[in-house]
Amino acid sequence: MTDFSATRAMFDLPDGVIYLDGNSLGPLPRAARERVNRMMAREWGGMLITGWNRGWNGEGWMAMPTRLGDRIGRLIGAEPGHTVVGDTLSIKVYQALAAALEMRPDRKVVLSDSGNFPTDLYMAEGLLRSLDRGHELRVVAPDAVEAAMTDEVAVLMLTEVDYRTGRRHDMPALTARAHEAGALAIWDLAHSAGAFPVDVAGGGADFAVGCSYKYLNGGPGAPAFIYVAPRHAGSARPALSGWLGHEAPFAFDLDYRPGAGVERMRVGTPPVIQMTALDAALDVWDEVSLDDIRTRSLELSDLFIAEVEAACPDLTLATPRSHDRRGSQVSFRFEHGYAAMQALIARGVIGDFRAPDIMRFGITPLYIDDSDLRAAAATLADIIENRLWDRPEHRHRQKVT
Amino acid sequence: MTDFSATRAMFDLPDGVIYLDGNSLGPLPRAARERVNRMMAREWGGMLITGWNRGWNGEGWMAMPTRLGDRIGRLIGAEPGHTVVGDTLSIKVYQALAAALEMRPDRKVVLSDSGNFPTDLYMAEGLLRSLDRGHELRVVAPDAVEAAMTDEVAVLMLTEVDYRTGRRHDMPALTARAHEAGALAIWDLAHSAGAFPVDVAGGGADFAVGCSYKYLNGGPGAPAFIYVAPRHAGSARPALSGWLGHEAPFAFDLDYRPGAGVERMRVGTPPVIQMTALDAALDVWDEVSLDDIRTRSLELSDLFIAEVEAACPDLTLATPRSHDRRGSQVSFRFEHGYAAMQALIARGVIGDFRAPDIMRFGITPLYIDDSDLRAAAATLADIIENRLWDRPEHRHRQKVT
Repeated sequence: MTDFSATRAMFDLPDGVIYLDGNSLGPLPRAARERVNRMMAREWGGMLITGWNRGWNGEGWMAMPTRLGDRIGRLIGAEPGHTVVGDTLSIKVYQALAAALEMRPDRKVVLSDSGNFPTDLYMAEGLLRSLDRGHELRVVAPDAVEAAMTDEVAVLMLTEVDYRTGRRHDMPALTARAHEAGALAIWDLAHSAGAFPVDVAGGGADFAVGCSYKYLNGGPGAPAFIYVAPRHAGSARPALSGWLGHEAPFAFDLDYRPGAGVERMRVGTPPVIQMTALDAALDVWDEVSLDDIRTRSLELSDLFIAEVEAACPDLTLATPRSHDRRGSQVSFRFEHGYAAMQALIARGVIGDFRAPDIMRFGITPLYIDDSDLRAAAATLADIIENRLWDRPEHRHRQKVT
Repeated sequence: MTDFSATRAMFDLPDGVIYLDGNSLGPLPRAARERVNRMMAREWGGMLITGWNRGWNGEGWMAMPTRLGDRIGRLIGAEPGHTVVGDTLSIKVYQALAAALEMRPDRKVVLSDSGNFPTDLYMAEGLLRSLDRGHELRVVAPDAVEAAMTDEVAVLMLTEVDYRTGRRHDMPALTARAHEAGALAIWDLAHSAGAFPVDVAGGGADFAVGCSYKYLNGGPGAPAFIYVAPRHAGSARPALSGWLGHEAPFAFDLDYRPGAGVERMRVGTPPVIQMTALDAALDVWDEVSLDDIRTRSLELSDLFIAEVEAACPDLTLATPRSHDRRGSQVSFRFEHGYAAMQALIARGVIGDFRAPDIMRFGITPLYIDDSDLRAAAATLADIIENRLWDRPEHRHRQKVT
């Protein structure tokens, strides 16, 4: 059984703060500072260029993208050797979609939904416009995806968990539906990896991508990951064919030859400092069962929903009640949600807001417990009951990711 | 006049090491560790999600790509507001080339040379194959570029300084030639930025890209930069159209609208930890005149060439002798160059090797002086004269970037 008091002790959280935004940016793992500081001094400072071969416990910095890929791969049910870390989620979406479209040259529709995170749609839009071959990006409502899965569709591209509402798609069922229709499926696991058990191999995903700065706590701007199913790993063409995806990067050939399997999805020189922080953050997962995380996340979410609904009748739950239809966040709609969230943050309860009216709360058992959620609900109730949101200082709009 | 003993004191260099590989990975600036450590503790740890707006001295992490872009822009002669930091050089090459090709839809040739860094060619190859519109990547010898500049050429894409030999192209002249022929010019400044004064605006470059981990000392995997000339900034379409290049990223619209100017070349969530190290590294440049760097680099290079040529007749200079035809590295050809470089590294003189026979030495006045280069040349002479390279431990091939 996972010891959640032990995992909580693995994070540095400010005193007096209840952090319910780990679905946007995970907090600082205690080990990360020391690890980065040591890497900078001993490896960058001490080994200099030879760190590429000698750094990172002798494995060499160059090995980090695939090794960290496997550490994340284990959390998403990937076969070993089929996940690699690098770039940003936007870039990885582009790589996956470009490769998938080439595998379905006679089909012209990319099917997605309005619950997808916008950058996935923007990257698709950019790619399709570059291709200029009559493709269509078809964006339907989340509950209309299944019905829209026609034989025109080349690729189904979805984010498993809606970033606003926390609504979760049925990945295995929709993937099976895509395959029946002759399409490929790309899953964005940004709000899944580290939030609950994921099974990309069992679920049949063709490609999966995600970021590591949310539930995986890799730090602001931590690199993304991409998974390519073994059946495609030897044939997927990396449209972004960079030197570190080359079969022999250090031969410095003039012509590109793709590397073996998912290695070809590497692009440029990897961000070693960010990867060092991520590596430290991933150590937390050695102590954790994802099944325990899921059980606890649902208990905590149900508790928070019950407390808020009892105390704040003006708020409407935006997250599905059914356990199998949600991720690990709880969202409420409230007309004055923006100002109410600012008031909450001013009281040390950090969640965030998404237009037009959604207050989001990330439920992260690694460092959040019952007492945090009771206190957060009570603070929220106080703000709503006493209209504390209705103050000028809470109305100025600020950006958060 | 730049005080190079003061700049040397700004770097942490291991005792007993003469570091002549700053053209591959710059050393650790003393300020970077403390800056990163503080950012991790106070901003990631202390501000959590609000760091995006409140971190980095109150400007917000979100502002870093454009602000650091301008810090680098100043070093390459860019107009303020037209350089942005992010991703890797490979990605930035792709963005520049994709945008440039759309501006010349009737032309089908991308002209480059065999002295370009391979990833630039690989990324071009990947892009052209995705476009599938009959483009040709035409790679000629460096001295054949001018003659190959015909009216078939859509884009001239070159790296200013050859990563092996240190040979420098005449950027203004070749750019003018490209423009006369109706083509656009993309310059890769990987071995130029921080190495000598660059003038992308005066030189007429349409796009420029580069990395920040060589002469700019941003650390392993530090982000890249892209410059878009003001005349194109409002019309260049970012093929990699990510959410942070959107006009209003936090509106979370379903449709992409490019941001103002170079902002549209931002893609995904920026790597804040790497950018913090880079920011500290860029402080060094507040103390430095690039004209002084250039003068000193040439003096030091001439000294090193003279010392090596006098003591090592078996080595052949691969770098042009003419000052205006070189960057800031010195390369020699030597049949046993790989083993000789390993022997040198074992003696604490760190340069690197590029196939088939090139020994590279980066000349970086910020932290290298006459005595370093005399000592390095003497060590090299000892290795060559006494065939110290001819030992089994120096023959095993290792990778360096």
